[in-house]
Amino acid sequence: MESVKIKEEVAEELAKKQREISIAEFFEKNKHILGYSNPSKAIITCVREAVDNSLDACEEASILPDIFVRIDKVDSKFYRVTVEDNGPGIVEKQIPKAFGKLLYGSRFHAIRQSRGQQGIGISAAVLYAQLTSGKPARIISRTSPDKKAVKLELYINTKKNEPEIVKREEIDWHLSRGTRIELELAGNYVRERKQSVYEYLKETSVVNPHAKISFVEPDGTLHEFKRVSDELPPPPKEVKPHPHGIELGQLMSMLKSTKTKDLRSFLKQEFVRIGDKIAMRVIERAGLKPDMSPQLLSREEAVSLLNAFMSTEFLPPPTNCLSPIGADNIAKSLQERFKPEFVYTTTRKPRVYSAHPFLVEAGIAYGGEISEEKVQLLRYANKIPLLYQQGGCALTKAVESVRWKSYGLQQNRDELPSGKAVILVHVASTNIPYTSESKEAVASVPEIVDEVRLALQECGRKLKEYIDRKERLVKRRKKEDLLRKVLPLLAKKLSEILEESELDHDLIVARIVGNVYVRRIVDNCRAKVEVYNFTHSKREIEVYEMCRGEVAAEKYTGKISGSDNAILVWKLNLNPGDMAELTYSFKGKILNKKPLVKGVDRDMLTGGEVGL
Amino acid sequence: MESVKIKEEVAEELAKKQREISIAEFFEKNKHILGYSNPSKAIITCVREAVDNSLDACEEASILPDIFVRIDKVDSKFYRVTVEDNGPGIVEKQIPKAFGKLLYGSRFHAIRQSRGQQGIGISAAVLYAQLTSGKPARIISRTSPDKKAVKLELYINTKKNEPEIVKREEIDWHLSRGTRIELELAGNYVRERKQSVYEYLKETSVVNPHAKISFVEPDGTLHEFKRVSDELPPPPKEVKPHPHGIELGQLMSMLKSTKTKDLRSFLKQEFVRIGDKIAMRVIERAGLKPDMSPQLLSREEAVSLLNAFMSTEFLPPPTNCLSPIGADNIAKSLQERFKPEFVYTTTRKPRVYSAHPFLVEAGIAYGGEISEEKVQLLRYANKIPLLYQQGGCALTKAVESVRWKSYGLQQNRDELPSGKAVILVHVASTNIPYTSESKEAVASVPEIVDEVRLALQECGRKLKEYIDRKERLVKRRKKEDLLRKVLPLLAKKLSEILEESELDHDLIVARIVGNVYVRRIVDNCRAKVEVYNFTHSKREIEVYEMCRGEVAAEKYTGKISGSDNAILVWKLNLNPGDMAELTYSFKGKILNKKPLVKGVDRDMLTGGEVGL
Repeated sequence: MESVKIKEEVAEELAKKQREISIAEFFEKNKHILGYSNPSKAIITCVREAVDNSLDACEEASILPDIFVRIDKVDSKFYRVTVEDNGPGIVEKQIPKAFGKLLYGSRFHAIRQSRGQQGIGISAAVLYAQLTSGKPARIISRTSPDKKAVKLELYINTKKNEPEIVKREEIDWHLSRGTRIELELAGNYVRERKQSVYEYLKETSVVNPHAKISFVEPDGTLHEFKRVSDELPPPPKEVKPHPHGIELGQLMSMLKSTKTKDLRSFLKQEFVRIGDKIAMRVIERAGLKPDMSPQLLSREEAVSLLNAFMSTEFLPPPTNCLSPIGADNIAKSLQERFKPEFVYTTTRKPRVYSAHPFLVEAGIAYGGEISEEKVQLLRYANKIPLLYQQGGCALTKAVESVRWKSYGLQQNRDELPSGKAVILVHVASTNIPYTSESKEAVASVPEIVDEVRLALQECGRKLKEYIDRKERLVKRRKKEDLLRKVLPLLAKKLSEILEESELDHDLIVARIVGNVYVRRIVDNCRAKVEVYNFTHSKREIEVYEMCRGEVAAEKYTGKISGSDNAILVWKLNLNPGDMAELTYSFKGKILNKKPLVKGVDRDMLTGGEVGL
Repeated sequence: MESVKIKEEVAEELAKKQREISIAEFFEKNKHILGYSNPSKAIITCVREAVDNSLDACEEASILPDIFVRIDKVDSKFYRVTVEDNGPGIVEKQIPKAFGKLLYGSRFHAIRQSRGQQGIGISAAVLYAQLTSGKPARIISRTSPDKKAVKLELYINTKKNEPEIVKREEIDWHLSRGTRIELELAGNYVRERKQSVYEYLKETSVVNPHAKISFVEPDGTLHEFKRVSDELPPPPKEVKPHPHGIELGQLMSMLKSTKTKDLRSFLKQEFVRIGDKIAMRVIERAGLKPDMSPQLLSREEAVSLLNAFMSTEFLPPPTNCLSPIGADNIAKSLQERFKPEFVYTTTRKPRVYSAHPFLVEAGIAYGGEISEEKVQLLRYANKIPLLYQQGGCALTKAVESVRWKSYGLQQNRDELPSGKAVILVHVASTNIPYTSESKEAVASVPEIVDEVRLALQECGRKLKEYIDRKERLVKRRKKEDLLRKVLPLLAKKLSEILEESELDHDLIVARIVGNVYVRRIVDNCRAKVEVYNFTHSKREIEVYEMCRGEVAAEKYTGKISGSDNAILVWKLNLNPGDMAELTYSFKGKILNKKPLVKGVDRDMLTGGEVGL
């Protein structure tokens, strides 16, 4: 009996210890979950949360972002992080909760692509700052040039998860509109690493060409990431949920809280891609009635409705809630950063997982100045560069799962490939499934992994084509080089025997290897350009000649005359084996050494120069 | 002016959208953060949360756990998960919040090692179940054989994060005490994978030898993971925070909420490892007074106190709040599962990070039945096997950062090593820094990574010693084999020439290779055992002889007589080069073919047999 008594007391004892945990307490104890697992990461995470907010706010207000970031060293352990933007500002009564309450925000309930989505990030930075330095967050915001700016200092009361304002003043401010946050926190400032504030801002700037970002390091060094484009990306629109992939619980909660009076209106008004016809079809399939009150649907009826969703086809979700970087922008940025010889990028069509639309973009850069080693992987989610947790990210797993050997790269099974390549993956979604609140890695959602694989396989195929073509060209070049060495000797011998003038070996080489051959013959002030198509396909070729002084030609496609010189243009359509003769006369001199040719790969051209 | 107006409206518009987000809503939308990113993982996570709770409850109540897990297939998409334990039960008024409110629990505020620590897990399982199936959770609990069991069905109201009971009854139940939970959820049941319910339960059983776990699969197959030890592990004690590593914000909140009246009592009562003397030293260093009221300390004074903590030495945190698996248990389990030829395990001393005590255990198994490939890594945290997110786990990173080549394994830089090895890492802490609420990976906390590295380097050194010794023995064996082939011929020839009786080659071989050599010479009913130590070190050797019938000896260390036979034991201490002669007479016969020897490796023994 003794032991039974003891055991009964245990349940009572345990019951006494049961307590509610405030979300702020929870994150105070688990700050690593928010990205604050070590001092150098802490600074990067703070900057990132503030900059993400600034970019989102500017995007929502259609303002070209002008963002200023400064990091000051306070003493050996503490730094002050300042982030300032020219966004719309925040109305005063919202400032305390926006910065001083976890799980509070405007973007959580909206189905629209945005950087922030959880209502945690910036308050978490405030929490970390006060936890380590004991100092309040200092916020300045101004919503109009007609009003003064408001400056608030606040703490988070962690037991209640509520803001506590310790100071408020109205001040003059140098910006007519915008928001500024200053945080003091325990940290460690690092430079020249992949994981650094500088890298984060640089990569952010790359995928946000419409933003200007200035950055002052603790030692005073100023970096300017310039605005490259004055065009605002179209702001993503807010949309309603898509019927595919919605969960039963979610559907039931929507049924309960809808303001519509009948099931038909409920379907049409609360979902995208449901019109009158489809609404009726779904209701019929579910064995329900269109005039039923949605609030009164039983669990079983909700299950039928969900099953009817599943067996009905809908248009894919609208794409205007998503804002891709764009294949061209990705290509440009890869080209600029890595100086490769080959780039291919792709933007896939939007798809849906658990009612959230998403789309995947990918790019591969190859060769050129990229060195031969384990492939560098650049991961982005909603235009935010992901610098941490590469190993724990579904995007990485997707890259590793592709069989890169068949696309010309080296690879150990299920690892990142090796070779002279850089791979970029971007996933944009109304709800990125991050593995944790720190937004460092994407969770392994099968639909997303599949799309990333498809995008990469497309990149892989193009890469393989390029590598194959390059190999063929190398072989061709070798053959050509060999011919060039042997032929002149042979030709000389031959012409001696035949007592003829020497042969044009270039012509012979071009004919043997199957190139386009161009030769210019000048006689006094008349020139003739011969163009031979020795390749196996029909070619559209443009030939240019640039001369100083007056020029006259019998036939040409275009002539561009400057004050003192002129350019002649011929557009030719040559079948395999065809030849064209272009003639002209000139008074001054020909400026280009060889005829300039457009429309032929350099490796397939003999005698001319690829130009213009 | 037009555009200014528009922009001002934006701030107002944005303000209107600001809303509070309930933690349940947050996790409903981000269920992957809790480990519900795909249907097969969902079932494993549910089982894991329930079993973790059962093991914790039994541990707290000092009950040998008897846990029953069953998974039933409801239809093609839905499964029912049932977990039942013989724990202390839960008092009725606590059931709704314990299962139906996120961030509620008894273990969050306690500094003590436990599987659950966040107050999220089981409520998250309830949330996922209702979200996917629309069905309530069904909970049965009984706290005493004198009371009836209570059965509740409940939902979580996600907008409020509060439980809603839909059914309550008192029932007869087959257990006198315990808790049972039944959940119906969308899932996918998989077998024969590393990531499966079976594997999770098997690995859990391995590190919880005192638990009995029964598991019924959907097809009815019953698995029994037996209780191997009747000893309860000492239950971890709850402790106060350690002064090292505490953060300023935390200290300030402790100062505010303490019930102590003066600073000296505050330090002594709210921290471990602070006695009267040390309290005075800290106060003096901080430039404060012992009778100050802790509640009235300013921020600056708190900073001084914290700095005084940092510059003072304290005893390491007490270890009784931690419950290691134990190096022996780890060794046993590695031996049993992998049948290696070599095992080394270690339990490190407790250390502290951010005021949380932790300790690291590691083990390595090598050779035997382990196949040659990428090393398998087993990760555990607070005795929970971690099956997911290997790539994103600091334990993995720590293993990869060790230079395994110097310990005899193959390795590409910063990858898992390859070779015939299995590596196990366990971290036990009062607060495991998981990277997310799903408890799948440990965050990169430098103190933990360092300890794991040290533990693994110790394992590595032992492995290297073993591999080197093995190589030496292989060489020695080869030499010995060669001598055995050549010597007899040589000896025969020699004895023919010298006309002497044949030499004992075993003796010669043993002398050349440096072995212990044992030979028994029997003459009628007298036996002599000669023991030569040809090795280079002093040896403690035991020699056994077993005879049927009567035995007599002049000198022996021990004699064990049975009804019909006897064992003679000699304990010898032989210096290099020494020899001992053991003589005895017998009436029956000698039972062992060769003398049995203890204290010599088989590879270093000639003439005898390693035995007993």
